Amino acid sequence: MMNERVYNFAAGPAVLPLPVLKKAQEELLCLPGAGASILEISHRSKTFDAIINGAQENIRKLYNIPENYKILLMQGGALTHFAMVPMNILRNSGKKADYIVTGTWSKKASGEAKTQGEVNVVWDGKAESNFTRDPLPSEYKIDADAKYVYFTSNETIEGVQWPAEPESNGLPLVCDSSSDVFSRPVDINRYGVLFACAQKNAGPAGVTMIIIRDDLLECSGDDLPTMFNYKKQAAGNSMVNTPPCFAIYMLKLVTEWLLNDIGGLEAMKKLNEEKAAILYEVIDASDGFYKGHAAKEYRSMMNVPFRLPSEELDNKFKAEAQEVGLSTLGGHRSVGGLRASIYNAMPKAGVEKLAAFMEDFRKKNA
Amino acid sequence: MMNERVYNFAAGPAVLPLPVLKKAQEELLCLPGAGASILEISHRSKTFDAIINGAQENIRKLYNIPENYKILLMQGGALTHFAMVPMNILRNSGKKADYIVTGTWSKKASGEAKTQGEVNVVWDGKAESNFTRDPLPSEYKIDADAKYVYFTSNETIEGVQWPAEPESNGLPLVCDSSSDVFSRPVDINRYGVLFACAQKNAGPAGVTMIIIRDDLLECSGDDLPTMFNYKKQAAGNSMVNTPPCFAIYMLKLVTEWLLNDIGGLEAMKKLNEEKAAILYEVIDASDGFYKGHAAKEYRSMMNVPFRLPSEELDNKFKAEAQEVGLSTLGGHRSVGGLRASIYNAMPKAGVEKLAAFMEDFRKKNA
Repeated sequence: MMNERVYNFAAGPAVLPLPVLKKAQEELLCLPGAGASILEISHRSKTFDAIINGAQENIRKLYNIPENYKILLMQGGALTHFAMVPMNILRNSGKKADYIVTGTWSKKASGEAKTQGEVNVVWDGKAESNFTRDPLPSEYKIDADAKYVYFTSNETIEGVQWPAEPESNGLPLVCDSSSDVFSRPVDINRYGVLFACAQKNAGPAGVTMIIIRDDLLECSGDDLPTMFNYKKQAAGNSMVNTPPCFAIYMLKLVTEWLLNDIGGLEAMKKLNEEKAAILYEVIDASDGFYKGHAAKEYRSMMNVPFRLPSEELDNKFKAEAQEVGLSTLGGHRSVGGLRASIYNAMPKAGVEKLAAFMEDFRKKNA
Repeated sequence: MMNERVYNFAAGPAVLPLPVLKKAQEELLCLPGAGASILEISHRSKTFDAIINGAQENIRKLYNIPENYKILLMQGGALTHFAMVPMNILRNSGKKADYIVTGTWSKKASGEAKTQGEVNVVWDGKAESNFTRDPLPSEYKIDADAKYVYFTSNETIEGVQWPAEPESNGLPLVCDSSSDVFSRPVDINRYGVLFACAQKNAGPAGVTMIIIRDDLLECSGDDLPTMFNYKKQAAGNSMVNTPPCFAIYMLKLVTEWLLNDIGGLEAMKKLNEEKAAILYEVIDASDGFYKGHAAKEYRSMMNVPFRLPSEELDNKFKAEAQEVGLSTLGGHRSVGGLRASIYNAMPKAGVEKLAAFMEDFRKKNA
């Protein structure tokens, strides 16, 4: 039975910072001062208040979020909020929403939004580029009267990432940042909503952050069930009912690690750029043995999908990598191939080990 | 800083079995065979498949659930499913649903259901009894054409528990069993839906079980967002997106403890009856110093609310109890007073210590 930790390149749930895991382990039987586990304490306790407020303060610091934004910590994952964002903001607005579709997840988001209101796909990256890049501003037209402009900052499956926020004609952006949250600074003032599930870059599965501008909370209809109403969730500080306490505790620890151990998002971005460059250099120098997916300017710092000359070699690569502790390198079940997810918590040493393995494997199999 | 575990009488999140916490702690850095933490592994892995399937099998064994029921493990807590059950089953049925209101939670559930369809409150326990008891079959009338009959098996705040399922004229029952799930056997064949959040009797906050009869899954409308559609959740084995993996892992451990350490739900029921009797005997023998809330036949085995002769004494009791390691005995913020929640995982020794403290406190303060 394998009882040693490997380098885990899973796309999510994904690797967490080791110091965070160690602290969680140390405190799991008894949270200092609480007399019980974080898994057992009341969400109405002062102890938990400090945890949820601490997590929110850390998020506010990391993204430099002004006071006119609320930070909700809810359940459901991104797929739930694909529907809940338009359920709250679009449904009764009499307007439509503009969606920029650049990969599997933005396509899925546009589909869920259609259950709630009128959706206008302003650019379809599948037809235009087989999801290998994001559009130039000249390639899409924003409706001046749209309620918001939606994009996915990083497409996890295709490994396509926006180098910077899209043009939106001054309209608020709504962004699914599930797979690159906290990987680099953002200008939050351009966003109406930025949401992200935690299980890729921010914690374990079970909590989803929704950073939302105050005025948009006023759109939530009184006819919505309590739990689906962002305005009520904000008024109750995300504790309309029992929140996912442990996942929020982990989110607090991860954001502390980002602030104190890493030194904030500029430092995190630099480290992520270095890690990604190591893998893309191996791919580019492989004489076509390794083939990436995205166009160079849109390559993701988080997810590096690639293919070998045959499916047989893909499988051989995966199996041999697994044997030396380079784990979970399979591509998404919908597209196959290989994918190295190198989120914030993946150490540079893990990326270097993978790069060395790739070079060695190519020499032996090219 | 207090670093010792106390007896935690919180109403939820609540005490967990110590052997379960110890195992989770031991495995937190590296799940045996997985090379990574349960917080980090892919929900599409064989390792996680075994965990979610194991949790479902344990639940099936504990409640002796036949094949024509599905077990969903979702997010959101009971409050979410107060709306989602009628969203899936009632909304397009052209029928109404009968709700038996016996306390705060069934009242809240009926309110959420009204956002989805027509709700008929067939008995209002607030008006009839100030939420001190459940109705006799002669006190309410079920509409033969109702879609389902809703009840809350245990009202956590008032400490009122149904001794057995209500009469429902052969209609399927829908039950919120959040605060007494797995505390005793049930005849699942009478249920259309039995749902329960985990954080009282089954695990940490973040996962909610929905045990649902196959034919009711056919009611889910195609117009629902994916995540809100029970039929799609069942088809995807609750992994339409990333599930709350850690909470499901804990649910598996807790249900294993129930099966193997406790010996199943008949044994659990006996132990719960013994524990509850210890506290109710102290209350009954106190010459009115301690006043319970529920009528005797409807007293909860899980939540024991009581009051002392004055609010001042309530507070003194709470403070002195806390000092000797009897923690979180405050009543729900909506009603005040005191409440001892003595779920499955509360050891008999904890209840005995509380009973001794109560007797001693009465002698000193009566």
